[in-house]
Parts: sequence; C-alpha cells; structure tokens
Amino acid sequence: MNYKIIIHILGLALVLESAFMLLPLGCAVIYGEREVWTFLACSSICFVLGFLLKSIKVNNRSMYAKEGLVTVSLSWILLSIFGALPFIVSGSIPNYIDALFETVSGFTTTGATILTDVEVLPKSMLLWRSFTHWIGGMGVLVFLMSLMKLSGGNNIYLLKAESTGPAVGKIVPRIQSSTKILYGIYTALTVIEMVLLLIGGMKPFDAITVSFGTAGTGGFAILNSSLADYTSYQQSIVTVFMLLFGVDFSLYYLLLIRKFRDVAHSEEVRVYLGIVFISILLIWINIAGSFDSIWTSLKHSSFQVASIITTTGYVTDNFDLWPEFSKALLVMLMFVGACAGSTGGGIKVCRIMILLKTIVKELKVTIHPKSTHKITMNGRIVEHETVRSVNVYIMAYIIIYTIAMLVISFDNFDFTTNFTAVAATINNIGPGLGMVGPIGNFSAYSGLSKIVFILNMFIGRLEVFPMLILFSPYTWKK
Amino acid sequence: MNYKIIIHILGLALVLESAFMLLPLGCAVIYGEREVWTFLACSSICFVLGFLLKSIKVNNRSMYAKEGLVTVSLSWILLSIFGALPFIVSGSIPNYIDALFETVSGFTTTGATILTDVEVLPKSMLLWRSFTHWIGGMGVLVFLMSLMKLSGGNNIYLLKAESTGPAVGKIVPRIQSSTKILYGIYTALTVIEMVLLLIGGMKPFDAITVSFGTAGTGGFAILNSSLADYTSYQQSIVTVFMLLFGVDFSLYYLLLIRKFRDVAHSEEVRVYLGIVFISILLIWINIAGSFDSIWTSLKHSSFQVASIITTTGYVTDNFDLWPEFSKALLVMLMFVGACAGSTGGGIKVCRIMILLKTIVKELKVTIHPKSTHKITMNGRIVEHETVRSVNVYIMAYIIIYTIAMLVISFDNFDFTTNFTAVAATINNIGPGLGMVGPIGNFSAYSGLSKIVFILNMFIGRLEVFPMLILFSPYTWKK
Repeated sequence: MNYKIIIHILGLALVLESAFMLLPLGCAVIYGEREVWTFLACSSICFVLGFLLKSIKVNNRSMYAKEGLVTVSLSWILLSIFGALPFIVSGSIPNYIDALFETVSGFTTTGATILTDVEVLPKSMLLWRSFTHWIGGMGVLVFLMSLMKLSGGNNIYLLKAESTGPAVGKIVPRIQSSTKILYGIYTALTVIEMVLLLIGGMKPFDAITVSFGTAGTGGFAILNSSLADYTSYQQSIVTVFMLLFGVDFSLYYLLLIRKFRDVAHSEEVRVYLGIVFISILLIWINIAGSFDSIWTSLKHSSFQVASIITTTGYVTDNFDLWPEFSKALLVMLMFVGACAGSTGGGIKVCRIMILLKTIVKELKVTIHPKSTHKITMNGRIVEHETVRSVNVYIMAYIIIYTIAMLVISFDNFDFTTNFTAVAATINNIGPGLGMVGPIGNFSAYSGLSKIVFILNMFIGRLEVFPMLILFSPYTWKK
Repeated sequence: MNYKIIIHILGLALVLESAFMLLPLGCAVIYGEREVWTFLACSSICFVLGFLLKSIKVNNRSMYAKEGLVTVSLSWILLSIFGALPFIVSGSIPNYIDALFETVSGFTTTGATILTDVEVLPKSMLLWRSFTHWIGGMGVLVFLMSLMKLSGGNNIYLLKAESTGPAVGKIVPRIQSSTKILYGIYTALTVIEMVLLLIGGMKPFDAITVSFGTAGTGGFAILNSSLADYTSYQQSIVTVFMLLFGVDFSLYYLLLIRKFRDVAHSEEVRVYLGIVFISILLIWINIAGSFDSIWTSLKHSSFQVASIITTTGYVTDNFDLWPEFSKALLVMLMFVGACAGSTGGGIKVCRIMILLKTIVKELKVTIHPKSTHKITMNGRIVEHETVRSVNVYIMAYIIIYTIAMLVISFDNFDFTTNFTAVAATINNIGPGLGMVGPIGNFSAYSGLSKIVFILNMFIGRLEVFPMLILFSPYTWKK
C-alpha cells in the first residue's frame, strides 16, 4: 500500500474543502451573521491540516486499484468529519453524530435530515448544507483531477470509484480534460437552473440553494415544507432539472460536439425516460381522486417521480398519504435510481438493464443450448467483467441492506419506517415512508442507527466497493 | 417441442393424483363423512382423464431441458387445478380462486390460507389439505420416477426442476434408485415423527396431519391456533423435525451408508445450523421480557426460528406482536430458507453462501489482481455455470418480487402486509406480518392478488426457472 500518495491526496482534498467553505463564509459576511467566525475558523483548520498532509514527501507516485479505492473512501470520510465542524462550532447541531449525519447526508447527496426545524438555521449554514450536495454530486476528487494531475498516471481508479455506474470511462482520452468537461457541464446546468428560477420570481438565496440541491440530486431544502410552497412554475423547473441531472453527463458532451446520433442510441436514457413516463402516468391516475384538479395531481405525480427516481428527495406533497400502489411504485423507483454517469444514486437504470438482459440470455440458452447470445448495451457488447461486477454489486448491496435493517430494528420502530429508512439512505434519496416520510425526519433513531445510516449513505454514494475495500482485512494485510 | 411425451407424463401425474385421493377417501369412510362421494368423484375424474392422456402414443421418448422444465411446470399447475376440485365439489371452499389458492398453497408447501376458520372443515378435507404438503414436499414427478422410467434417459431434467438447490445431482448413478432412496428417507422420517407425537399423547389424526405438514415444510394446521395448543413436548418434537426436514436429504443417505466424514464436511448444514442457533439466541434474548419464564421464551424462539427458516410456517405464538428486531430477523430468515436438497423453500442457505463467497472473491481480485481464487463448497470447486445460475436466479427472483408487490398494492393494504405477503408466498412459508400475520390470513385480498400469490407460490417451489420457461415466448417459437 502506497500510504504517502494517499496522505498527499487527502491533504489536497482538505485544502479544497477549506476553499469551499469560503462560499458560506461570504454568505455570512453579506447577511452579517456571527457564523463568519465559525467558517473562518473551520476553513483555517482544514487549510492548515490539509497543507501539512499534502506536503508529505511522495517518492513513488504510482497508484493501483487498491490505493485508488482506499483514497476515495478515506477522502469522503475525512471531508465529512471536517465538513461537520461548522454545525458544531456554531451550535446549530450540537450533537456530533447528528452533525456528522447531516454532513454525510449532504456530501453523499442523500438529503436525509435529523433536523426537525431547518428554518431556524442561519443562512450561511443553510448554504453550506446545500453546497455540500453540489460538491458531493460530482465528487471532490473529480474536481481535484480537473485542476491537476494527482498521481503517476493511474488516476482512472479515482475517477471510477467516485463516478457512478458499472463501467466508468473517460469522455476524452485525457482524464484532466474529461473531468474539466464534466464539471463544466455540471456548473453550466446549475447556473441555467438558477437563472430560470430567478426569472420565475424565486428569491436569489432560494434559487441558489434549490439549484445546488437539484444539481447534486441531494434534496436538502431551506424550508420545512421542502418545495411545497413554491409556485407551480418553479416546481416544474425543478422537475425538469432533476430529470436532467439524472442523465449520463457524457451525453451532454455528445450533444455539445453535435454527435446527435450517439445520443439517440443511448438505450439507458430511453429506458430511464420510459420508466419516468409510465410511473408518472400510473401515479397520476392512482392519486387523481385526492386532488381538486387533474393538473395538480399531474404536477405532484411528475415532481415526485422525478425527485425519487433521480434520488433527489425534494417534496411537494406528503406522498406517505398517497394510495399504497403509488407508494409501492415510489419505493421501487428508490431502488431503480438514475442513469450511470449522472449525479443520482440508487442501483442505476443500466445495471438493472444488464440484469434483465442476463436473465433473458439465460432463458434463451436453456431453451436453445447451442445459441451464442451476447449481452449488448447502447449497441456495444457488455464485457463479462462488467456483468460480473454488476452481479457482485447487487449481492453486496442486498447483504448490506439486510444487516442495516437488522441493526436499526433494535430501535423498535415499525417495519415500513425501517425498510424505507434504509432504502432512503443507501440509495441517497432522503425521505422514506412512515416516521421518515416527507414530513418526518431521522432524529428519533439512536446513535447506533445513525452510524448505520451514515455508512449506508457512503456505501450508496460510492457504490459499495470502495467502502468494502476500506473495511476488508485483506486490504491491510502485507 | 416433444408434446407427446409431455402429455404422457401429465397423464401419469393425474393418475397418481387420483391414487393420492384414496387417502382422504378412506378417512371420510372411517369418520362417516359425506365427503366419501366427493373424493370418489374427484378421484375418478382424475383417473379417467389421466388414463386418457397417458395413453397417447409416444414414438419419440427423448426429452431435453426445455421439455423437462415445461413438463414440471404444467404438471404442478394441472395437479393443483384438479387438487382443488374436492374443496369446490364438497362446498368447503365454494370460490374457485380461493380453492385453487388453498391447493397451490398445499402442494407448494406454503401453508398460506384463505380460510378464516379451518376447524369447520370435515376431517377428510383437513387430511387432503395436509396431505398435499407431503406430496408437494418431495415432488410428484420425483415420486413417479421412483416407480418407473419416465422418458428416454433424460429424466435428470425433471429431477433438477422439481428438486431444490442450484446444483441438483443424483445420490446414486441410477435416477430411479436415487428417487427411491429419497422417498424412502422422506417416508421414514415422517413416520418417526408421527410415532413420537403419538407417544407424546397427540391424537392420531393430529399426529398424522401435523407430520405431513412438517415433512413437506408446509404449515397447514387443523386448528385455528396452529400449534399453539399442543403440549411443550409435542411442540419440541415438531421443532426438531422441522429442522431435520430442512436439511439436504442426501446427507441422510450418507449417514445410512455410514459416510460420517462426508456428512461432517457439509459446509451448508453447518452454516444452516449456525444461523438457526444464533437466531434462536438473539430472539430468545429479545423476547425474554414478554414471557413468564425463560423456558417459554426459548421454546417459542426456537419453534418460530425453525418454522420460518425451514419455511414451514407453523405458529406457537403471535410473533407479529414481538419486538421489531425479532420480526426483522424472522423476515430475513424467510428469505434465507432451508438447505438445498431439502423440502424447504426460500433462497436456500447454499445459494447465499455462494453469493457471499463471490463477493469475497471479487474483493480479493480487486486487491490482488493476479490472485486466482476459486469458489469452493463442501470442499469442491463450484462451477462457473452454477455461480451464474445462482446470480440469475436471484435477479429473476427480485424482479418477480417487485412486480408482485406492485400488483397487490392495488388492494391498498399497508406496506408491511404486502411486503411480507409476497415474502410468505414466494418463499413458501405461509404467515407474514400485519394482516397476513400468524393470526391473520389471505382472504381479504382481491382475486387478482390471489392469482399473483398463486404464481408466487409456484415460482418459489419450482425455483423460478421452470415457470419462466413456461411463460417465455421463446419456448413456444418454432
């Protein structure tokens, strides 16, 4: 294990976090909040510690899969530990586990909260909370890679571990250029959403925080009612942008370089949009009776489907009161998740497609033993390696899910609450059903359960493997 | 597709069913019930139709995987359709879907019921209900194969499709001898249980039906209180026998031929017993506060763990009222299921072990890319083919589970009820939680949902593939 390169990169990540804290610091200055000192102190701590770590002398800059996965896991844990500091120092969230839960929920773009009243938080704290979504959506190390060359050529492991989907590739041959393009698209889309919300009459602070939460598919809101009190225009803009941030970002690059045919060939996006369309339709019909006008029910249906499948978690209506079919469908969408290569969580549409195709292939082989059928995706053959990794991902996911369910059951909350609480955290969504439903929160769970949820959120965001490698004894054996 | 051999075997299965109906017929004679005529009529119908079908002229007796899987699926459907006749003819269950549900629940050894009061049924009907468990536990075609040679040498597909587990093999080289040994062990164990229950003072009729339900890991009881009103000795005998019927039957053969070392090497059984032991202990501690004595709680804990992991479904206490941790653990055991090669349902311990080993292997390969680690089970290498089939099995299982959940949600019962109703049927258990809990039943569900449950039970008992093949359009294409 090349410890020095890991420490060096962790240092860089902390320095970057100290820079990120300048945004809420500026906000505190503008609104004249006393949290100026909080963010100044926290940013300084991150900078000094980060600078010390990054200055370690690295002779050997080589990095293999093992180092890559460990670096990514540790960087997320470290950023969360220090990212929680402002909440504690300012006294906004005095309990450390709660503060860590909130920060991890932010960085992993989950949006689950332990706060019963978010509106009492100072504006700078609310901004930091929403900004963590934006940082975590695309990933800190991806950001670092867009700025500099992190190690001796094998950065691809860092990109793979922090990006979503089973077969992460580079958009263009050079990693630094690829990550620059990704962050460019990400920033541009975020800004466009902000502008459209401002045009729709939303207050600037709301537009900024809501857009951060949409872009990272996070879900932290600055109002206790989430997005229920905004206008229909504003909610519709958010609906569209949630869906946009759930799409593979490399497709936007293909659009930019005018490769329209390649975009049209993306099976995953077509299936993703197909699921969205059918789900909106079914829920629309199912909830129609509960609202005055069919347009209101269509608005809520489309908003909630977009919010859940992209794993954002914003809410415009308390869907815990909807009919069971709509609830079951939303729970199913929690697991489906968004497209690979997006900022969304969940299992991802393309993994599910690969699984379905594997089943069909197996049936065909059983019926015609001599058939040599290959699994394809977007017109290309899916490598055996990828199929295997998808299988192993799902199995590990189920086992982690089961263990989490068992541990949090000690708190003796009902089955529906527990089941959807795990679903909402491991899929990085935010709200579930029952006690953790749209108008509930995670505050009643014990410290042990909150630690389980924190691990769930990390595991979900980093797609299982980096965290498993970090905690595997094999990794640390000579 | 070789239709003639399929029709021939279906005919034989019906003739066998007509013979099976002689048992409840005898019971009706003894107790002087008017159901004598019911069973006489139904048995005659089965015999005549079966004889006609079996008499089809079969020129080509060859049978491949496709024919084998289709035959098994169709034979289970046919036996259930005709097995439901006595309930309707006698008027015990006037609604045909309900009668079919009850029969499928019997043959698939599920034990889920739509009856709100079983004690009003005539004794002969109760016996038929319990007897279907015993028939379905080991399988009708397996029984047929122990009597005669069914087709031109490729009977192994029938054995594979009807037996449980991912890698079904023959105990001895000849299939007919293998199936004879299996049924011999099965019958012997059933009789031993009956005798032990009789010694414990149980009434003969109760001892017979309870033993049928234990042997097939079914769970239909003849009292509304399930097994709660029997003595502690009787309940303990059932606990032990449920666990015994959850073990791979080939191990009993190895015991008989004194290959004790091979038995001791069975990883699956050790893990199975380990899970049982730990689960009993955890639930015992968790429920201790709810009972007067620690022995009562130990008795309920061990009975319920044995009943659920073996997917029997007998009940001695309403576990729906136990603390959430115990309930969550029992729900987990519903999925784990018993050992491959037993009469139990669920995913099976050995499949879960293979999945865990696959994950560990994948982690090792990621950390040491040059390592060539093979997955082993009981000291032998698990073939790639088996690993793949286990993966595909789980994926298909999850997808079927999800679809079932969505469809039954239209009935608007709560999430916990729906989730465990699917778990209880697809894993062939019987009771779930909530409305389908130990003191509940499936009667309130709509006809559509009951059809979904019927399919679940078939899919669970035949382990997914035979039913998928039956309903796949590829199977029926030229």
